[in-house]
Amino acid sequence: MPQNTTSEQPEAVRRRTYAWADPQLLATAAQELDGIDFFERLGDGKFPPPPINETLGMALVEVNDGRAVFELTPEEWHYNPIGTVHGGILATLADSALGCAVHTKLKAGTAYTSLDLTIKFTRAATLDSGTLTCEGRVVTIGRRTATAEAEITDKTGRVIGHAIATCLIMAGS
Amino acid sequence: MPQNTTSEQPEAVRRRTYAWADPQLLATAAQELDGIDFFERLGDGKFPPPPINETLGMALVEVNDGRAVFELTPEEWHYNPIGTVHGGILATLADSALGCAVHTKLKAGTAYTSLDLTIKFTRAATLDSGTLTCEGRVVTIGRRTATAEAEITDKTGRVIGHAIATCLIMAGS
Amino acid sequence: MPQNTTSEQPEAVRRRTYAWADPQLLATAAQELDGIDFFERLGDGKFPPPPINETLGMALVEVNDGRAVFELTPEEWHYNPIGTVHGGILATLADSALGCAVHTKLKAGTAYTSLDLTIKFTRAATLDSGTLTCEGRVVTIGRRTATAEAEITDKTGRVIGHAIATCLIMAGS
Amino acid sequence: MPQNTTSEQPEAVRRRTYAWADPQLLATAAQELDGIDFFERLGDGKFPPPPINETLGMALVEVNDGRAVFELTPEEWHYNPIGTVHGGILATLADSALGCAVHTKLKAGTAYTSLDLTIKFTRAATLDSGTLTCEGRVVTIGRRTATAEAEITDKTGRVIGHAIATCLIMAGS
Repeated sequence: MPQNTTSEQPEAVRRRTYAWADPQLLATAAQELDGIDFFERLGDGKFPPPPINETLGMALVEVNDGRAVFELTPEEWHYNPIGTVHGGILATLADSALGCAVHTKLKAGTAYTSLDLTIKFTRAATLDSGTLTCEGRVVTIGRRTATAEAEITDKTGRVIGHAIATCLIMAGS
Repeated sequence: MPQNTTSEQPEAVRRRTYAWADPQLLATAAQELDGIDFFERLGDGKFPPPPINETLGMALVEVNDGRAVFELTPEEWHYNPIGTVHGGILATLADSALGCAVHTKLKAGTAYTSLDLTIKFTRAATLDSGTLTCEGRVVTIGRRTATAEAEITDKTGRVIGHAIATCLIMAGS
Repeated sequence: MPQNTTSEQPEAVRRRTYAWADPQLLATAAQELDGIDFFERLGDGKFPPPPINETLGMALVEVNDGRAVFELTPEEWHYNPIGTVHGGILATLADSALGCAVHTKLKAGTAYTSLDLTIKFTRAATLDSGTLTCEGRVVTIGRRTATAEAEITDKTGRVIGHAIATCLIMAGS
Repeated sequence: MPQNTTSEQPEAVRRRTYAWADPQLLATAAQELDGIDFFERLGDGKFPPPPINETLGMALVEVNDGRAVFELTPEEWHYNPIGTVHGGILATLADSALGCAVHTKLKAGTAYTSLDLTIKFTRAATLDSGTLTCEGRVVTIGRRTATAEAEITDKTGRVIGHAIATCLIMAGS
């Protein structure tokens, strides 16, 4: 069952071109800096955004101690087969906001990884939703793990989804 | 804190252009056909893939009663700030496979929506992972809800992640 | 592998006797009354607590619109094989608080059921934790589903666990 | 809002007395033995069951490498306010089966803790369900974390619920 690709179906085709930067610089900086310093330099444009942000049109718009806010404006190219923004896009927003919120709490040389994500999809997002805002917040942080929550709202403040997750914290050697 | 965008940082910039088709045709067909017929025609190239598949380089490669398989080959443009495939990409794969598996069970005129997704990230995915395969399978199906599970493996069969979800089934009028 | 039971091992055996009332009256009242009225009468002692509350030593201590609070004081008989309060006890507290919070929003003749529970265990609970407080709160409520969250704290206010869930709402005939 | 207790409401009161053993012996053994040896001795009646098993009428009936099976027969004293087995009882079964399955994989001196539980409630359990069987199985295991899944079925094999979880593995000193 090899699917035809859109490029073979010329009728009604839309095209998009976007750019991203080598992510290696960013990954290195993430390990070498305290989390809060990392985000400050990212905010100052000292580092390019991670590739996924460009691929999905997602931006980190605010970050402070234990908290991070992302925005994404739904586009047709986020749509699933049933005509709404794919739940995976909302999951990406939530995972990003949660992860960055935890990252702000980490010292240089400490790495983290998301162990999981549980997201509730509470309202369909469409082009009419306007810019989505996703706020992540640390709930608990220990030596080995942290938990965090995120809430996604549409332009009118209605809750589109909400999530919780656990991150594993790995002390550097 | 408006972030600079990659296009303002010419050094080391990569570019990608892709195309997708109007998703309206697909959304209409999804409601008018039995689920299994919908996927048969999608497989025959009668409909273009949904936009999200083109945006993320994800393809439905197999579908049958209560089961759906997606593939995605990691690219640099899937990367998060810490140098691995963003968890949201894995969540998108899982949500797609789970949802399609449930969709195969639905009669024409019946709609469904994912209520949630819980995904475990068990191993980092990178360019070295090779093509990821995500198999979704219905676990239970009732009149109002269905539950499903998905497992994502790398080219060597190692489990990258696994997920469960509930879908709400809405009988048409 | 039939396990021996504790009653065959007389050394160091502890015993507990408790009582509960026929739950049928409560289940009937739950369907015939608006949620908020149901809890008001439960609080006034017009109905006995549900059996599970007696089995686990759990009590509903506060309830109002979209919010419910339970308490439980850890006892040795809540312990798991590794010497802490079993995670299932915390899950029971969370499921109770979430469900009651949603129930307060329902009109007479409307039933609900928990579709799931995701709980994070963030700190071990022991006899030293003192009375645990679990507050549940509705996050979103629609015609067919509601989502809610709960947080469990120990006597010093530290977060022992937190949870989210979806409830299905079923309009009466 | 102090609730009356059942003992103040003599009509239709049921009583239950049960026993359990000091859990300290068990907790110590859990750390000093390889997981698989620990369960072998537990099965041979060398240790008493953990208190929670007696409180809830739950028994470990089978355990082998990466797998554990619990049984519980619903009783009226498991009931919630809406006349079915409380979801927390199902969560306790799932958390137990998942945790024991992971425990079988651990060497002496290694401890573990459940970080979370996500459970889907797919069918109400009542006295008519007969004995519930919950099988837990390890899905992935690494150096720091393991994931596992559990499925609960009634006496006719219908799926009452299913769950996934992450356990944190802590190497001893």
